[in-house]
Amino acid sequence: MKVSPLAPKEFATLQALEGVKMQTVEAGIKYSGRDDVLLMMFDEGTSVAGVFTKSKCASAPVDHCKQILSKGVAKALVVNSGNANAFTGVKGASATRDTAFMAAKAVGCEADEVYLASTGVIGEPLDASKFDGVMQGLAQACESDNWFKAASAIMTTDTYPKLASRTVENSDILINGIAKGSGMIMPDMATMLSFIVTDANISKDVLQALLSQHTETSFNSISVDSDTSTSDTVLLFATGKKGEAITSLDDDRIASFSQALNEVMHDLSMQIVRDGEGASKHVQIDVTGAVSDISAKKIALSIANSPLVKTAIAGEDANWGRVVMAIGKAGEEADRDKIAIWFGDVRVAVSGERDPDYSEEEASLAMKGDEIFLKVDLNLGNGEARVWTCDLTKEYVAINGDYRS
Amino acid sequence: MKVSPLAPKEFATLQALEGVKMQTVEAGIKYSGRDDVLLMMFDEGTSVAGVFTKSKCASAPVDHCKQILSKGVAKALVVNSGNANAFTGVKGASATRDTAFMAAKAVGCEADEVYLASTGVIGEPLDASKFDGVMQGLAQACESDNWFKAASAIMTTDTYPKLASRTVENSDILINGIAKGSGMIMPDMATMLSFIVTDANISKDVLQALLSQHTETSFNSISVDSDTSTSDTVLLFATGKKGEAITSLDDDRIASFSQALNEVMHDLSMQIVRDGEGASKHVQIDVTGAVSDISAKKIALSIANSPLVKTAIAGEDANWGRVVMAIGKAGEEADRDKIAIWFGDVRVAVSGERDPDYSEEEASLAMKGDEIFLKVDLNLGNGEARVWTCDLTKEYVAINGDYRS
Repeated sequence: MKVSPLAPKEFATLQALEGVKMQTVEAGIKYSGRDDVLLMMFDEGTSVAGVFTKSKCASAPVDHCKQILSKGVAKALVVNSGNANAFTGVKGASATRDTAFMAAKAVGCEADEVYLASTGVIGEPLDASKFDGVMQGLAQACESDNWFKAASAIMTTDTYPKLASRTVENSDILINGIAKGSGMIMPDMATMLSFIVTDANISKDVLQALLSQHTETSFNSISVDSDTSTSDTVLLFATGKKGEAITSLDDDRIASFSQALNEVMHDLSMQIVRDGEGASKHVQIDVTGAVSDISAKKIALSIANSPLVKTAIAGEDANWGRVVMAIGKAGEEADRDKIAIWFGDVRVAVSGERDPDYSEEEASLAMKGDEIFLKVDLNLGNGEARVWTCDLTKEYVAINGDYRS
Repeated sequence: MKVSPLAPKEFATLQALEGVKMQTVEAGIKYSGRDDVLLMMFDEGTSVAGVFTKSKCASAPVDHCKQILSKGVAKALVVNSGNANAFTGVKGASATRDTAFMAAKAVGCEADEVYLASTGVIGEPLDASKFDGVMQGLAQACESDNWFKAASAIMTTDTYPKLASRTVENSDILINGIAKGSGMIMPDMATMLSFIVTDANISKDVLQALLSQHTETSFNSISVDSDTSTSDTVLLFATGKKGEAITSLDDDRIASFSQALNEVMHDLSMQIVRDGEGASKHVQIDVTGAVSDISAKKIALSIANSPLVKTAIAGEDANWGRVVMAIGKAGEEADRDKIAIWFGDVRVAVSGERDPDYSEEEASLAMKGDEIFLKVDLNLGNGEARVWTCDLTKEYVAINGDYRS
């Protein structure tokens, strides 16, 4: 597997974080010669928040996590790659129960304190007995500095592990995160997983509010190909080792924590886009002047998801006509004759027509390189949004269409 | 340009239809060495109905047609290929007025009896003076048997002209139609145009009702790549030469006319899908058991537009997991554990999991050939829908991404 040309030059080094230990192992779920199961163990007092796929065909592990989230206590996290345990009917739910039970026994907790995520093939029953032989050993071998191994074990078609870390300003509070996702996961679908741990002392409700808020502008503002997985899961754990408990969003300490959390989530989500299947360009799309932020985001995602826009970017073509098309099809309020469009710093269209001063040469220059900036001003109101995507290349079609032939 | 492998083996031969004449000419709008302007002239008493793009960035000709449609009288139709006259601001509206005026003068009618459509590059001002030199000559040279020339002159990246014809059962009423569309039109976007003429005697309101009804299950049930053009236009003209006037939907003669019209529109819409850019397979998707027909159609289009599903079909991969994903992301009511999925006659999933009797070999066989049938039963209600699409191939990316490089 060729590493994405947009991969980071070097990986973030994640320090040990008080209250969490982890280990990985090869359980032979699908892959051979690599670890495919991750166990994280959390100290007593760890709170948790989660955000999940909106799919109506959510996987069994997503169902499990949603069910136990209201309790808000986490003692363990088990993640496997190679099998998504999605669309597996009653067998899937049963495999989930068995896995949670085994992990609970190995770790010494209740099954509703064990969080689960699975990614890989869908429709294939997950054989939970594979975990049976390894769970006890994993629990005994957990260490605090295994972040890189953890990020690697949850990969599927990812071409590199994804890690990010920040220290909260003016404090010793640490936030470590890992993620996986690469557009569509061979051989089935895109699954985006992210697990973030902090040693901050924050109640589950406050955690949930912060996680939901920042998910909207990070993981929910990226798109590789508009397809939604059955398994998308973001979990945020707070081990509570540092400082007095934060139980309200009005707490003075929230601002700096929120800022650092946002940075970790932004960092991880950018790493996912940059590992988009077949991606050769990273694209940032800004929409301003919409009637609302929600409307701006719909228009931005309509542009980000348009096959025509994405293929034009792959071809380094400043094809603003396709951007106009994508604005028009979004179904959101827009006045054709007020729209302005930029590629990089070059305004290519204004007041509903081609910018009279537009230079094709300058616009083409803005399409070179691997970072593309596209901006649309609707000139209607104050709504704005920023989303990120990648281009659509022949490599994407090859990855998703060729592997059985 | 290589002709689509899904092109019809032979073209329909359209007979002369009383009350309409047409001619084409090379006006040099963009292409050279081929005709790029079509003029149709209608006899006194021709009524008209129209359906247009829902894009908020509709082209100037679409604006024009919408404005004059309530009058419901057509004397002429002018179509040009090579320039869409979209996103061209006040210049675009002015070019439209000038063109309608020139045609009205040549044909001898009012400007609000002249219908217009343009397809091609967007954002490029359309030089209406190009029509000035040719309009008079076109009007004088109109003939009744020029349907093939007409279908050819409106092509852009189409690889073949699209024609269809039916005679209404138990009558001598004829319905002739032409269309163009090929996914995305180089160098800008998908434009789907269709012009249908009948010699039936039908009032504009009845025409409009029939056109809207059948558009929903034909042109609005096909998708090449989910992108919506600024210029999509379907016009239906009735010259009124045959029989007594039909002025009510309750008229006994409606059923057979409606049936023949539906067949013409279905035929033309299938020809558009089969000319989808880079298409190697024609895909029919049936969704049954939804809570409503509207819900069924949304789910069917979610499947049809999924890049993952489309690349899997290109790779002849019976990847039903991706179909589950596309159902789940549609946002419509679905119960994972009730869903059944077929490729051809092979049921691959049932009751929310892999069909225990499913044979990978048989499923793979169903993916061979150039006609693919996909069926989903949601087992919730009586809602159903059928849509058509094509696969997503590297050729699509090449056509839309490579042409400037």
